[in-house]
Amino acid sequence: MKIAFQGIKGAYSELALYEHFGRNAESVGFDSFDEMFEAVADASVDFAVVPVENTIAGTVVENYDLLLSHDIFIVAEIFMKIRHTLLAKKGVVLNDIKEAYSHPHALRQCKEFLRTHNIEPMPVYDTAGAAERVSQWDRKDCAAIASELCAEIYGMDILSKDIQTNKSNTTRFFVIIKKENLTDEIVHEKTTIAFKIQHYPGALVDCLKTFQENRLNLTKLESRPIPENPWEYVFYTDFDGGMDSEVVRHTLEELEQRSLFIKILGSYPKGTDCW
Amino acid sequence: MKIAFQGIKGAYSELALYEHFGRNAESVGFDSFDEMFEAVADASVDFAVVPVENTIAGTVVENYDLLLSHDIFIVAEIFMKIRHTLLAKKGVVLNDIKEAYSHPHALRQCKEFLRTHNIEPMPVYDTAGAAERVSQWDRKDCAAIASELCAEIYGMDILSKDIQTNKSNTTRFFVIIKKENLTDEIVHEKTTIAFKIQHYPGALVDCLKTFQENRLNLTKLESRPIPENPWEYVFYTDFDGGMDSEVVRHTLEELEQRSLFIKILGSYPKGTDCW
Repeated sequence: MKIAFQGIKGAYSELALYEHFGRNAESVGFDSFDEMFEAVADASVDFAVVPVENTIAGTVVENYDLLLSHDIFIVAEIFMKIRHTLLAKKGVVLNDIKEAYSHPHALRQCKEFLRTHNIEPMPVYDTAGAAERVSQWDRKDCAAIASELCAEIYGMDILSKDIQTNKSNTTRFFVIIKKENLTDEIVHEKTTIAFKIQHYPGALVDCLKTFQENRLNLTKLESRPIPENPWEYVFYTDFDGGMDSEVVRHTLEELEQRSLFIKILGSYPKGTDCW
Repeated sequence: MKIAFQGIKGAYSELALYEHFGRNAESVGFDSFDEMFEAVADASVDFAVVPVENTIAGTVVENYDLLLSHDIFIVAEIFMKIRHTLLAKKGVVLNDIKEAYSHPHALRQCKEFLRTHNIEPMPVYDTAGAAERVSQWDRKDCAAIASELCAEIYGMDILSKDIQTNKSNTTRFFVIIKKENLTDEIVHEKTTIAFKIQHYPGALVDCLKTFQENRLNLTKLESRPIPENPWEYVFYTDFDGGMDSEVVRHTLEELEQRSLFIKILGSYPKGTDCW
């Protein structure tokens, strides 16, 4: 069973993948989210793990666009705390570190730690790539900020753990499969859909009333402009209840009549929520 | 009159500032959004220009959090197309360029151009910083990807314009002032608020119905988790209508009764919308 993630070995997405599928899962890294979705679509992988929201950076809108444009289905959600780790070649000590390489987001999140230890932040493309690079250099004054998993993968020492300032930095991931490979085995507790509303004031409320009338609780709602069509929005929403429930199916039929367009993106068990 | 932006001279935020206030405005760059909001709060600047949403990268959630936690008021919105430009030292030609320095987002948006011209992408912290750096180096094989404004500021040549793949990349900015400095001169056409809903299924719809009953059209709606309070969300919404309208004031009074909390973030003229 092959499971896709975006990035190179040791990326936070790969860590989420192992948390969900176990440490023996066969993970496959892709350069871009596009290529990862294509791999799911042509069934060269069985699943993909897709980051969709982060408490600091917000929604990964690119991935919602890809969920909308591909024939996929969400079968699980994963919430994972992002714990940044300072890694260096074996034998290197914290006091000698002058430079830390990582993605700009990670560097910013660890700004206080870097200041305190007088370490210069050095931006690169990704966290795991920084770890790989530092592990290959013959230098004792530089480190990488990346996941703990990178220590194992690139044979590095952990100099300091949990070095981010904001301790509640959490990413939400979806696990997706090709839609036609969907089986009946999945527990349905939560559903994610996209819909477009009609063009009159109050159209959104008319759509959302459908959920209220059927006593379904919305847990996320977001509007996203469609650049090609000014004034048009797609709404993404999550709600409690699965597609195996009569009430949910009935609600979505009603919603379909009130909206311009609706697409069911997935129905899946609730993740252990650490928002 | 001093106007704040985040970044160094030539940042896209400074370009938005000039588009709105004119080329003679006195712009002041700040290292972080935090510091920029503090400068508005302690009145050391008169206005600040704050990016809040981008068609590719989505909502800048950090800035919505800052809008919520500061006593500020939004007095204008600006929509600006992001046009990436390839810049180099005077006399350098496109054929000689081997490396292009810029923020990872900008590099990714210009991936096709860079591939076609066989240019290696080199990530750094920000676009304008890349331009400044390249302008100071004594090298003829490197360029920066940044705003056109940087050519003028750092005395560089423009090698190629509009090099991004997606031509509809647009950023929305808010212009904010300290709340107590609000005057009566502003035209009110659109309003932005934050609110928290009560804890029962359908609570969101009950809040949104207030707008529908009063025939006010929502133009944006977004939920944002509060990391410290699991399951709690703040909703941000924009709607047509200004605070000088009786209907809007009445609607917000009703909303206040139906919600746990409401904060008016601003009321301002409609920007020229290029979503």
